[in-house]
Amino acid sequence: MGPMTARKLAPPLNELSATEIVEVVTAGRTTCEAVTRACLDRIAEREAEVLAWQYLNPDQALAQARALDKSGRTGPITGVPFGIKDIIDTCDMPTEYGSPIYAGHQPKSDAACVAMSRRAGGVLMGKTVTTEFANRHPGKTRNPFDPKRTPGGSSSGSAAAVADFMVPLAIGTQTTGSTIKPGSFCGVFAYRPTWGDLRCVGVKEASGSLDTLGLYARSVEDIALFRNVLLRIDPEPLPSGTPAPRIGFCRTPAWSQVEPATQKLLETAAQVLARAGAKVEDVALPETFGRAEESHRWISSFEFTRNFTWEIENHWDKLSAALRNGRLKHGLGCSFEQYRDAREHAEQCRQVLAPIFERYDVLFCPVATGEAPIGLDDTGNSSLCSLWTLMHVPAMNLPVFKGPNGLPIGAQVVARRNDDRKLFSAARWVYQQLT
Amino acid sequence: MGPMTARKLAPPLNELSATEIVEVVTAGRTTCEAVTRACLDRIAEREAEVLAWQYLNPDQALAQARALDKSGRTGPITGVPFGIKDIIDTCDMPTEYGSPIYAGHQPKSDAACVAMSRRAGGVLMGKTVTTEFANRHPGKTRNPFDPKRTPGGSSSGSAAAVADFMVPLAIGTQTTGSTIKPGSFCGVFAYRPTWGDLRCVGVKEASGSLDTLGLYARSVEDIALFRNVLLRIDPEPLPSGTPAPRIGFCRTPAWSQVEPATQKLLETAAQVLARAGAKVEDVALPETFGRAEESHRWISSFEFTRNFTWEIENHWDKLSAALRNGRLKHGLGCSFEQYRDAREHAEQCRQVLAPIFERYDVLFCPVATGEAPIGLDDTGNSSLCSLWTLMHVPAMNLPVFKGPNGLPIGAQVVARRNDDRKLFSAARWVYQQLT
Repeated sequence: MGPMTARKLAPPLNELSATEIVEVVTAGRTTCEAVTRACLDRIAEREAEVLAWQYLNPDQALAQARALDKSGRTGPITGVPFGIKDIIDTCDMPTEYGSPIYAGHQPKSDAACVAMSRRAGGVLMGKTVTTEFANRHPGKTRNPFDPKRTPGGSSSGSAAAVADFMVPLAIGTQTTGSTIKPGSFCGVFAYRPTWGDLRCVGVKEASGSLDTLGLYARSVEDIALFRNVLLRIDPEPLPSGTPAPRIGFCRTPAWSQVEPATQKLLETAAQVLARAGAKVEDVALPETFGRAEESHRWISSFEFTRNFTWEIENHWDKLSAALRNGRLKHGLGCSFEQYRDAREHAEQCRQVLAPIFERYDVLFCPVATGEAPIGLDDTGNSSLCSLWTLMHVPAMNLPVFKGPNGLPIGAQVVARRNDDRKLFSAARWVYQQLT
Repeated sequence: MGPMTARKLAPPLNELSATEIVEVVTAGRTTCEAVTRACLDRIAEREAEVLAWQYLNPDQALAQARALDKSGRTGPITGVPFGIKDIIDTCDMPTEYGSPIYAGHQPKSDAACVAMSRRAGGVLMGKTVTTEFANRHPGKTRNPFDPKRTPGGSSSGSAAAVADFMVPLAIGTQTTGSTIKPGSFCGVFAYRPTWGDLRCVGVKEASGSLDTLGLYARSVEDIALFRNVLLRIDPEPLPSGTPAPRIGFCRTPAWSQVEPATQKLLETAAQVLARAGAKVEDVALPETFGRAEESHRWISSFEFTRNFTWEIENHWDKLSAALRNGRLKHGLGCSFEQYRDAREHAEQCRQVLAPIFERYDVLFCPVATGEAPIGLDDTGNSSLCSLWTLMHVPAMNLPVFKGPNGLPIGAQVVARRNDDRKLFSAARWVYQQLT
């Protein structure tokens, strides 16, 4: 055990943020091994209930940590344990994409995001549970706050593992609401970057025109740190003392699906933000955005169906009925013209959105209809996320509310394309006012 | 041998177009096996000189053809042999990405484009030679018209194999000029689709915001047929009797690099097209396009370098010096701000280009500076292709000219984004006037 544990400092090592871990490891106040061991202890204690991991080999994780300690190498996330969704390839761990078709599958190389994380000193803990091919058919993971409830999906295990203090950082992906929604259900920071920024090489594609990586952490600073690692650029702390942002309160076309209790939380929060000094205005999106969810669905289904041609042609019987009768049926029924029109509609919406963002630093929006629903067969409603996914803009879930049952509900902040750093600053300000 | 060979019809089976093969196979006038055997015979005769193939197993190809004959199954490309660039994954053939790092590498599944081609009845002949990771370090392939000359790259083997009547169809990719330029050097039809249309799952990514598949054939009709297969939509013949198109003669900012003899060929051709009834006008691009090649290079290098992090970190010594000192050095020296600015510049150029395409059905442009250069160490100048790649527009090489040494030179036609079918009709009209 490292000196830090010996001194019995609170909080325990597995509850530190990534930023804090780097600090104490670099200062020699603990070791990579001790941090990894603390996370493994937490997993040992909680995994039987949460079931966040698809593949976990403690010896393999500890060996990485020891090698880092021995090398003395320092990097932006030295000694930070991280998990990755099991649709992301690894050269030394199986990658099964949430499907029996790929049982025991061992890729040759690491996905780009994995290689960049390791290069920066991260300790890859293992593979987290995903839904089948990052679509809707759920994996085994349960919500850490209530095992009867879904953690959300498709990045179920990544969200649950960070929420449950098993790892401080995890990578997921988002094609509809697969990062942001589990963030709300599990009460963690969840970030979907500007589309196209973070490389997806070695990540099983669902729908390339919509897919991005997604990041989980327990602070905005950690998200910013991890993003730089995945851009392979130097760390750059967020500027301190950001002024109150200009906020557009955007209920989105799916507002009527939001439960009244959640609506109330958001309305009240908007008032709190205004009282705290932000310029807050209501933003109603033009009517054409009402069709965005449908356009998202056509694009997603058309591409998904073609992407999985090999699996469809060779392993139809190993695909879930949910996938066959859902996404695949929808995609095979979509003509190329429908797909192209949906893509053009998305592009028009992006152009309509651009001037709106000249008036606001961020939009403040719902992220989920309410608390994580009871049941593990469905990963919940993604209608409040798909619009922003389609817009290619960066978005973040902030874990700021508690619902009627005491479970987490988030708020979503959204910024203009390429304004990811502005999103972080505004998100931090908003989070500070609401907690 | 099938009845067709017995009847000694000309041309030989390996010289038929894909469209013709489907016709004769479906009519029962020959077999898939006979067609495949004719192509294999041609390869046996010529491969020692051309070196187009990275992996070729005649028994495996013949087994596929026999299975098709036995099943009686008909599809849009039943019995059509095709080759694919060896950066495209196959479940039953090694895939080496042009790099010793992946010697003998065997993927688990077929790339989406391979699965769709097989589903449509195609016979996968083997893997064609690529440059290292589809970048510039060349493979072994020689120009079929002159073994002292480059076939162009990076889709070297695919272009050479179609040009040399080894297969009627082949798939390549394009990130700069990797499909179109070898098309010009080898004298075949080469098509780069609207960016985003054809799924790249299972294709080793070079730079995702620029990469597309690229198709080779010996007729425009075959290109149109193959495109529909790869969109997984029903075949739809090109409309006959297309009227003369409105043509913008666009010399592009790289015109000064075009050899005088090639300039003359293009100038004369523009006059021929006008005399044949097309409305032909000179189009000068606004000044901002002068920076497009530079923006293309930043985007390409930034993304490439991150995509290959695993290879860089683990196999630096197995990367060519050309790659290390070229693309990778450039990419590691590119800041995120430079990358983002280049992406924004590209987006601005796309918006400037849109109204220009309201006045023309297609632009008529150079594709290469001249004939394939002598030497196999360099795949030639791509400056005339990178602009259109960056614009995300569909483009086609038409094999219409012969240079001073009697070697092929192409003309490039380019259409508006999403106007791929209009490109085909106009390209066919142009080709007919010039040959």
